[in-house]
Amino acid sequence: MTEQKATNVHWHEGEISREDRDRLMNQRGATLWFTGLSGSGKSTIAVALEEALFERGHLSYRLDGDNIRLGINKNLGFSADDRTENIRRIGEIAKLFVDSSVIALTSFISPYREDRDKVRALHEEAGMPFIEVFVDCSLDEAEKRDPKGLYKKARAGEIKNFTGIDDPYEAPEKAEIHLHTDQMSLQEEVDLLLAYLTQHNILPA
Amino acid sequence: MTEQKATNVHWHEGEISREDRDRLMNQRGATLWFTGLSGSGKSTIAVALEEALFERGHLSYRLDGDNIRLGINKNLGFSADDRTENIRRIGEIAKLFVDSSVIALTSFISPYREDRDKVRALHEEAGMPFIEVFVDCSLDEAEKRDPKGLYKKARAGEIKNFTGIDDPYEAPEKAEIHLHTDQMSLQEEVDLLLAYLTQHNILPA
Repeated sequence: MTEQKATNVHWHEGEISREDRDRLMNQRGATLWFTGLSGSGKSTIAVALEEALFERGHLSYRLDGDNIRLGINKNLGFSADDRTENIRRIGEIAKLFVDSSVIALTSFISPYREDRDKVRALHEEAGMPFIEVFVDCSLDEAEKRDPKGLYKKARAGEIKNFTGIDDPYEAPEKAEIHLHTDQMSLQEEVDLLLAYLTQHNILPA
Repeated sequence: MTEQKATNVHWHEGEISREDRDRLMNQRGATLWFTGLSGSGKSTIAVALEEALFERGHLSYRLDGDNIRLGINKNLGFSADDRTENIRRIGEIAKLFVDSSVIALTSFISPYREDRDKVRALHEEAGMPFIEVFVDCSLDEAEKRDPKGLYKKARAGEIKNFTGIDDPYEAPEKAEIHLHTDQMSLQEEVDLLLAYLTQHNILPA
């Protein structure tokens, strides 16, 4: 990063572009869209990838229930319409981060294929990388882990329309990356993601 | 920015924090909230500041009508409720950028004091810098400039509820920065903003 005296500023023609920012950041903005059952490991992988990127000097940002459902989407519930609007807004926000040259890591169950495909289309129309990461784990295994006790509540009928129990999870058919979290170590998963990002010029070689 | 081999990754305790990111970026995330009449010069100043920051190696990102009204807020109109929701969402998105260590530059008329103060509160509750920049220009001058021909349409009754004509602009009472755009050059404005950011440790000294 270079320093300059204020008096040395010279005005460019036009505005700073995404390409300019990518050059500054030595990375390309991209969305990694982690999708999978509750308990499949989406957040664990996103946190580990965030750290691996940080260690290499790269900026990523995680969007998850904590900063979305309690913030911009706090006026949305869990009706079908609200779930669709939830994913739409997250997709639009991820796109803004991509445009800013940050690597966006989104961790949401996002069970419906149509909603995910709309977010993909939003990115692709703008020429922005969208990398769907299927965090695949059997329902049995996810329910065994049950880190938040949600499956137990869903089985007891205390939570309705819970994905995998009484609401469907539509697995991706064309995910860029398919992680079998019950067969791979976290390190292997992160290595695979880093290799993908390098091969696709999101990260420098 | 440093490179490391994938096999050298070591897992931290806990997650990457905002402070970690600020260190990586050599800047602090912050929101500069430009408010003022249509034609007052909000976007011009934001574009110039973005470039001056870029020249110094700093990452900022502009949120404006182009990427917000056509994206995440395309399902909002111009009713009182929708205007309030428009500003609320922009505030929440700016806050996410601050958390990611990016300097967010927002350019919206944002005429209502209550709406702006809510965004300020959102930031301050989270310990995030919120810098309100009053882009002050007389209605006469803004209407003379009329870069988009909107005042003409509003005077002709073709646009209703236009700020300054038949809808109020509530000037900030406690803006961190007050720019009289009809008395300062663009260069002076940018220099003033950069000095403020440095004095307040958003940018390194």
